Amino acid sequence: MNNSFGDIFKITTFGESHGKALGCVLDGCPPGFVLKKKYISKEINKRKPGANRYVTKRKENDNFEIVSGVFKKRTTGTPICFLVRNTNTISSDYNNIKNIFRPGHADFTYYNKYGIRDYKGGGRSSARTTVSLVIAGSIAKKILKKFFNINFFSYISSIGSLKIILKNNINFKKYFVPNVIKSKYVNNFLNNVIKTNDSVGCKISLDIFGLVPGLGDPLYEKLSANISKSIMNLNAVKAIDIGLGKTCSIITGKQNNDLFYKEGLLSNNAGGILGGISTGKDVNINVYIKPTSSIFLKQKTINLKAKEQHIKIKGRHDPCVGLRAIPIIESLVSIVLINSILKQKINSFY
Amino acid sequence: MNNSFGDIFKITTFGESHGKALGCVLDGCPPGFVLKKKYISKEINKRKPGANRYVTKRKENDNFEIVSGVFKKRTTGTPICFLVRNTNTISSDYNNIKNIFRPGHADFTYYNKYGIRDYKGGGRSSARTTVSLVIAGSIAKKILKKFFNINFFSYISSIGSLKIILKNNINFKKYFVPNVIKSKYVNNFLNNVIKTNDSVGCKISLDIFGLVPGLGDPLYEKLSANISKSIMNLNAVKAIDIGLGKTCSIITGKQNNDLFYKEGLLSNNAGGILGGISTGKDVNINVYIKPTSSIFLKQKTINLKAKEQHIKIKGRHDPCVGLRAIPIIESLVSIVLINSILKQKINSFY
Amino acid sequence: MNNSFGDIFKITTFGESHGKALGCVLDGCPPGFVLKKKYISKEINKRKPGANRYVTKRKENDNFEIVSGVFKKRTTGTPICFLVRNTNTISSDYNNIKNIFRPGHADFTYYNKYGIRDYKGGGRSSARTTVSLVIAGSIAKKILKKFFNINFFSYISSIGSLKIILKNNINFKKYFVPNVIKSKYVNNFLNNVIKTNDSVGCKISLDIFGLVPGLGDPLYEKLSANISKSIMNLNAVKAIDIGLGKTCSIITGKQNNDLFYKEGLLSNNAGGILGGISTGKDVNINVYIKPTSSIFLKQKTINLKAKEQHIKIKGRHDPCVGLRAIPIIESLVSIVLINSILKQKINSFY
Amino acid sequence: MNNSFGDIFKITTFGESHGKALGCVLDGCPPGFVLKKKYISKEINKRKPGANRYVTKRKENDNFEIVSGVFKKRTTGTPICFLVRNTNTISSDYNNIKNIFRPGHADFTYYNKYGIRDYKGGGRSSARTTVSLVIAGSIAKKILKKFFNINFFSYISSIGSLKIILKNNINFKKYFVPNVIKSKYVNNFLNNVIKTNDSVGCKISLDIFGLVPGLGDPLYEKLSANISKSIMNLNAVKAIDIGLGKTCSIITGKQNNDLFYKEGLLSNNAGGILGGISTGKDVNINVYIKPTSSIFLKQKTINLKAKEQHIKIKGRHDPCVGLRAIPIIESLVSIVLINSILKQKINSFY
Repeated sequence: MNNSFGDIFKITTFGESHGKALGCVLDGCPPGFVLKKKYISKEINKRKPGANRYVTKRKENDNFEIVSGVFKKRTTGTPICFLVRNTNTISSDYNNIKNIFRPGHADFTYYNKYGIRDYKGGGRSSARTTVSLVIAGSIAKKILKKFFNINFFSYISSIGSLKIILKNNINFKKYFVPNVIKSKYVNNFLNNVIKTNDSVGCKISLDIFGLVPGLGDPLYEKLSANISKSIMNLNAVKAIDIGLGKTCSIITGKQNNDLFYKEGLLSNNAGGILGGISTGKDVNINVYIKPTSSIFLKQKTINLKAKEQHIKIKGRHDPCVGLRAIPIIESLVSIVLINSILKQKINSFY
Repeated sequence: MNNSFGDIFKITTFGESHGKALGCVLDGCPPGFVLKKKYISKEINKRKPGANRYVTKRKENDNFEIVSGVFKKRTTGTPICFLVRNTNTISSDYNNIKNIFRPGHADFTYYNKYGIRDYKGGGRSSARTTVSLVIAGSIAKKILKKFFNINFFSYISSIGSLKIILKNNINFKKYFVPNVIKSKYVNNFLNNVIKTNDSVGCKISLDIFGLVPGLGDPLYEKLSANISKSIMNLNAVKAIDIGLGKTCSIITGKQNNDLFYKEGLLSNNAGGILGGISTGKDVNINVYIKPTSSIFLKQKTINLKAKEQHIKIKGRHDPCVGLRAIPIIESLVSIVLINSILKQKINSFY
Repeated sequence: MNNSFGDIFKITTFGESHGKALGCVLDGCPPGFVLKKKYISKEINKRKPGANRYVTKRKENDNFEIVSGVFKKRTTGTPICFLVRNTNTISSDYNNIKNIFRPGHADFTYYNKYGIRDYKGGGRSSARTTVSLVIAGSIAKKILKKFFNINFFSYISSIGSLKIILKNNINFKKYFVPNVIKSKYVNNFLNNVIKTNDSVGCKISLDIFGLVPGLGDPLYEKLSANISKSIMNLNAVKAIDIGLGKTCSIITGKQNNDLFYKEGLLSNNAGGILGGISTGKDVNINVYIKPTSSIFLKQKTINLKAKEQHIKIKGRHDPCVGLRAIPIIESLVSIVLINSILKQKINSFY
Repeated sequence: MNNSFGDIFKITTFGESHGKALGCVLDGCPPGFVLKKKYISKEINKRKPGANRYVTKRKENDNFEIVSGVFKKRTTGTPICFLVRNTNTISSDYNNIKNIFRPGHADFTYYNKYGIRDYKGGGRSSARTTVSLVIAGSIAKKILKKFFNINFFSYISSIGSLKIILKNNINFKKYFVPNVIKSKYVNNFLNNVIKTNDSVGCKISLDIFGLVPGLGDPLYEKLSANISKSIMNLNAVKAIDIGLGKTCSIITGKQNNDLFYKEGLLSNNAGGILGGISTGKDVNINVYIKPTSSIFLKQKTINLKAKEQHIKIKGRHDPCVGLRAIPIIESLVSIVLINSILKQKINSFY
């Protein structure tokens, strides 16, 4: 019942996995801003299925339409509506789950919440809905980069039990996942997951650089709190670290405190946030994502009448859903950052 | 710049560590509810300093006044203002930090954010401000228990590197911390922390039972997201797990999926939340808290003009600030839960 | 920069007069509700141009598409997106106003606000955007009628200086405007307005019946306040009365006070609202609408560079824009009422 | 159930007429601002009872305490809590209304809404609660004047049927009401109202000057809409005009349209607002206030069990409650204006 996110720079999204279309309305985008479809498409492609053999083979034709808010290629300050038509949906894949609940999925909880459920492709609970986030987020990221010089460096830091070590000579311009999965070890690991009809979780690390000190609004709109909320709203996320995160609970104050030098903070155990406000150092976040819930093994479950039965899921599903999560997480965090910046700018008005 | 929390059941808090008073305005409390000062006092005492040798020796006279919203002992539906006068403040303890930033504290970020800073006791960034949360939260908890039969079982699951094992014969009625620190091992551990003028982090585990399925509002007000936000707003929290949390990122779908039986879900790896909505199983959360930033060792820092110097912190500080966090975390989560319940009830109106 | 309206039952609208499409996203509609396109179409037709000779001849093809939120004809609790494609737009009508400001219009203020302006048909400031309100409002009205037995009786109570007297034998089932303009006097009056290339204002009266006592949330979300805000958001509205309205400022307390009898209030000078909360009597509102700003007379104005010039407006414009306002006003008020009801229901939870 | 007002510059108020204290929490006040108690006191005194024989003789000791948010006389960016203790309350005046509803008052609606009612002095529905608005509003007005050069000229334009004509040589520095009631005609008129144990309504006119063009956020946070809402939230207000208001409904487009000249708009029928956005001309508003509900005549009413009886109201009540409304209305509008300005400033960030 709540599909809006952000307050000044605000999106309202809509659409289901197998419905007519998905999209979002973006309110609060600056007027006069040149909106290039090409740039947005590039971001969408990063999360797009079908990019390699480890992501679902569903081909999403993510051609989007800009319905409103742009006049002669420039934003006008009025709400921008984006529309992405659903194509290549094979709804028949879902007939067998019409009356039963898939383990690990939101089927059971949606049904209990609303008393009704769009079972085709998971309906509104599908990760397919994140395409709306990436569209709006790509604009947010562009604004952060262009006006505030804020950039992301994000990567998959582990896949299941496999730790990914970034090489020194990493090519920042290339997108990371293809690089990662070109590795023979990663390849073998994922192939094995597929072969066993199972799936696997992963960990994503974000490094956000360029933030000025002072972002975040205590007591209850802290930067750490809003970033956490935004990421926890993403399907399959089950844990978050800020800075040292979990580790700081087992060390001492002396080990944990970042000391101030005239050059600023040299260490960054706090992950760029103190008292819920940015310190000006990089913001470091770890996101822990559970394994894809759709596995091809036979599983125990119940139907709508609580009768036990078995389920064998069909369809096209990623062995590791987290492999496509980076552009979505960056989108969510970007929207938080823009709003934090705009609110902080207000202090300088007077 | 934002000191309100919650939407239907909503609090607005105010006050600084060494100011005249702290307090909160609670809007949305049901009318006709009997408000007992005694019950609130009991909850406040749980977070109160001075309770044992491991929490700060500052004696807070947490006598509070109910300023409005109650008529002949019953709530009237109008806003309830609570006021807690500050006493036993020794502001002179803070004269030496007037112009310098304490490592690990919010001094630097508040100064950068607002251009001005109340340095006495940390001002608004002090954990002292959580007294307002506990007052409002105690009412929220009472409502959850009385009307919805929702209860918390929370405990400190580790202190620094020391894992706390709950005994089978734990007395649920007694408050846990005294029990924990009665243990000789814990005692020795904390004494050693104090002796070395250092501090230590800890981990807190929450088990919330009694929730019906269906709470939480996708896509962007998920139960998991709002609980995470609320807890991340608490000073010193740096990481959160829901259910298996971090662990689910290293296991497989088969290991992680909770299966449905006619009795319901038997396992609870999801921590009671699927698709951001409660499943009806207990909600399990781990909270990771950093070590107290105020340590009594000499530390490197800078002053307001970025000149390097050393600081030696005075005052009365907990060796492990997390030891007092449970009633505060329960308060924050309770406010989230009440709002989720009320929003879900709306579906049944029509 | 704000295109959302309502909080629990909430719409977010988008679209410009001559853009690709207009529409809205409705969040908070009850799940399981049967959504009939036919009913919505009927409501849209009431505000539709081209219905008679006194409303603009622009033929709007208000065929709308339900993009999301409905599964097998029922709402699912997820956001419902409606899309209305723009057709029959003659943008060339607006080339001559590209660089100048039309008197009485929002051209000047939008340009000053955003620094950029979609001049085609007034862009986002056009009354065309109200189609989104009527779609969402028609659902709100249906819910009010079906679940809460709340109905509207609204009529045009004056056109310019011409007072409209409701006949005793008024046919409530027929829509009022055709009846009104069938009158010879009204006909002659409006014909004369057209002949002189001028326009005229009007007054609309609403009578809302069926409200229970207790709706509205003091102190700052009073029913009177939210109804006023909603109506004042409609283009061309310049004044509002609640109950006796303006008149109560010139009479005495004895004349104004409604007395209580065992049957309830017999008089209703307060217009159904006391202390910002519904009394259970009909809510009576008068809305005062200014004359259509687009008149066909030559008028003095300036261009973007503040150089004086004359303008002669082309296009298709109503002589009295208020004649089409009733379904829109009822929509706005319906959304306010649903939200007030849902909020009040919350009191009965505990 | 909602006692917050404003979004960036936001107040949360609390307190009842005969409770312990009233007050408000102000969030979003700029940090570093020098807060002078003296200035606030001056504003409070303008609405204070007891100022002359035509306002209630209840002597309110409006000494207020600044509880938080100010450090060494400057605001710190943290929430500012103001507290005004209630004194000189004669609750026994209200024992006779304990079980009955006063005509024209909110007694009946509060009872129906909340099922419980603080009958002493009207509890939360009392105009006494406006003291909180005036405190926060005085700061808002100061900021508007100091940083944005925005000023108010407000006056009582009629009392009952008596029209007040402003003299040319009006002394802007002196407060207007004393001037007005020094007039023999006004004196005689009000004396007669008192003599007959009756009360009378009035009309207040506001002229706000200094606004830049561009304030207000279409479509649903228009300046006109938010100003109307804010004023309609004030007790006893029943109608509002913006610019020509009601009059524009009876004239023609030619008569109503303000034409653009190179010097700007010369006429101001629109009252400084077009399309919901400020034009830069003065904003003109008329507010219509009903007669004081408390009259000393015997009136028909019912008790809590709907049994008919008579009531004769005791206590100290103004013959014309509107005579004290100006500082309150200016406060409400000031809070709207500050928020509109801050939101509009955001456009210039990028």
